[in-house]
Amino acid sequence: MPELRKDPIIGRWVIISTERGMRPHDFPVQKKEIQTSHCPFCEGNEDKTPPEITAWRKDGTSINGPGWEIRVIPNKFPALKVEGELKRKGLGIFDKISGVGAHEVIIETPKHNEEFISFSNERIAKIFWFYRERSSDLKQDSRLRYILIFKNHGYEAGTSLEHSHSQLIATPITPKIVKEELTGAKTYFDYKHRCIFCDMIEQEHFDQSRIIIENESFIAISPFAARSPYEIWILPKRHSPDFDSISDEELTKLSIILKDIFQRLSSILGDMPYNYVIHTASNRNFQDPGYWLTIEADFHWHIELMPRLTRIAGFEWGTGFYINPTVPEDAAKSLREATVEKKEER
Amino acid sequence: MPELRKDPIIGRWVIISTERGMRPHDFPVQKKEIQTSHCPFCEGNEDKTPPEITAWRKDGTSINGPGWEIRVIPNKFPALKVEGELKRKGLGIFDKISGVGAHEVIIETPKHNEEFISFSNERIAKIFWFYRERSSDLKQDSRLRYILIFKNHGYEAGTSLEHSHSQLIATPITPKIVKEELTGAKTYFDYKHRCIFCDMIEQEHFDQSRIIIENESFIAISPFAARSPYEIWILPKRHSPDFDSISDEELTKLSIILKDIFQRLSSILGDMPYNYVIHTASNRNFQDPGYWLTIEADFHWHIELMPRLTRIAGFEWGTGFYINPTVPEDAAKSLREATVEKKEER
Repeated sequence: MPELRKDPIIGRWVIISTERGMRPHDFPVQKKEIQTSHCPFCEGNEDKTPPEITAWRKDGTSINGPGWEIRVIPNKFPALKVEGELKRKGLGIFDKISGVGAHEVIIETPKHNEEFISFSNERIAKIFWFYRERSSDLKQDSRLRYILIFKNHGYEAGTSLEHSHSQLIATPITPKIVKEELTGAKTYFDYKHRCIFCDMIEQEHFDQSRIIIENESFIAISPFAARSPYEIWILPKRHSPDFDSISDEELTKLSIILKDIFQRLSSILGDMPYNYVIHTASNRNFQDPGYWLTIEADFHWHIELMPRLTRIAGFEWGTGFYINPTVPEDAAKSLREATVEKKEER
Repeated sequence: MPELRKDPIIGRWVIISTERGMRPHDFPVQKKEIQTSHCPFCEGNEDKTPPEITAWRKDGTSINGPGWEIRVIPNKFPALKVEGELKRKGLGIFDKISGVGAHEVIIETPKHNEEFISFSNERIAKIFWFYRERSSDLKQDSRLRYILIFKNHGYEAGTSLEHSHSQLIATPITPKIVKEELTGAKTYFDYKHRCIFCDMIEQEHFDQSRIIIENESFIAISPFAARSPYEIWILPKRHSPDFDSISDEELTKLSIILKDIFQRLSSILGDMPYNYVIHTASNRNFQDPGYWLTIEADFHWHIELMPRLTRIAGFEWGTGFYINPTVPEDAAKSLREATVEKKEER
């Protein structure tokens, strides 16, 4: 059973993932490669994955067989496990929690060599539709405090399988960075009685220099304090703390802006390694007297997309500081001016 | 001039380093290599670096010429610059500070292929002697709030030059993670009236399972909530908030424990990429009414050493959570049982 352990000094939680049982020679950096053959995510290899949770299937096809377009499965080597009771325990000055949670994989396409940049708008919207579906479902589980949706693409971004996929990890505590965002947004709200993200959108409209592209529902910016070259945040214009409040129409608008951004990034950087994460408010279906009451008004869900072009060295790792060699306004300008090829829809 | 920018939501500072002026094709992850030829750190190439700040030299040799054992120089492409006034500025809802600071390189050996593991105890002690020397000197500059000493070894750990070296970056603000440690230690002290690090050493002596090795002055442990496999913390047994309070005798004791640890790590993991950082208290030679008054009693300097065996993927990057596939007690056991070869002293 995996467990969560808390650093006694700064309160940072780590997952001690016994499931993976890695020996020294198994560590990916020593192999410097990602799995490319015998792909368990390709159509026809459905028996190599745990049974599917849900899928977008052609009519008449059978569950766990071929004929799907998008497939959601439990992770075969989960960081956290769905079964089990949430137990908190002290060990002298240390604290731990049983590793209860969920770890799912969203296989974004049946084809091995198809990538996000060449997906149709319909496929992108549907991937995010599944994110919404799975989030809403897992929120019913009162043991789960947070649901993180993320994607790793490329070796430097930490992917272990090449086939295009994203992941969902539900945790029994609110993760540190999310808590910092929630607290920061609440502090600002207490002071100004306005949402800091809404104010940031206003500021970006005023400054203009960091806006990459926008449509009726979303805006994509180079954040003022970008951690890495070409980091992009995509914010919904409609204030809402929860990603799963996104409407079907907004899903379509989001797919259009995402596809556009990936084309711009690709025309400048080629096939770069990247991560994206969705930051949304914590689950609020539990009793917690100390919980933030203003969350509906002060938090604003968004997507953070980070091309992984610089490495995390001792300075970044030891301080939490990042060194970004590209001025965010320059990155935004390059992205605004980048060519958006009209790719063939699939 | 580089600048520091603050993320308005969580208060994370980033350095926008215009000095390096990277173009998209310059990013290291797209080259996937580190510089190995024309090494500016080799003996005889002293003219390829900025003029030295200080050095351990053989008698009769000239400054900026050959004949040195350890050499300290300014970084040729500094993240922050020594010249200039510390200016704070608001830009709408955003905040920035001029990029004043210092960025130095400690070249640990004149030989290109010599590594930390094969250094003599004397050399290791002397490297840390220079860390102490440079810290004490830079503390006199009232613009500087913090001095971070760190080492990057190997591609995954972010090094850009192969020749063994460490670095020092002095910043005009206390970095986020250090501030979290200072705040965490203060909170614990306010509650218990004891240093949390001293208590942790006591707990480790009681539990035994995470101690790797110790001598009269230092203890090396697998931290309870280790972020990555084989992460090691080295703590001085004598309580002190400041690294630069280390005595000459303690420098020798530290060199013995460090060499031992690198030999143990190497016997298990081979030549692994790694970072180490020294976490010490902030500079206290400035007037700041909100500053922590108990710092002498509540903080405890230490070294954090992290083999870089796992990658930072979307989950880690988006949450601040780490997934560690090796149980810290198992890592400590392997390291305790590892062979320590008696290498020839150089």
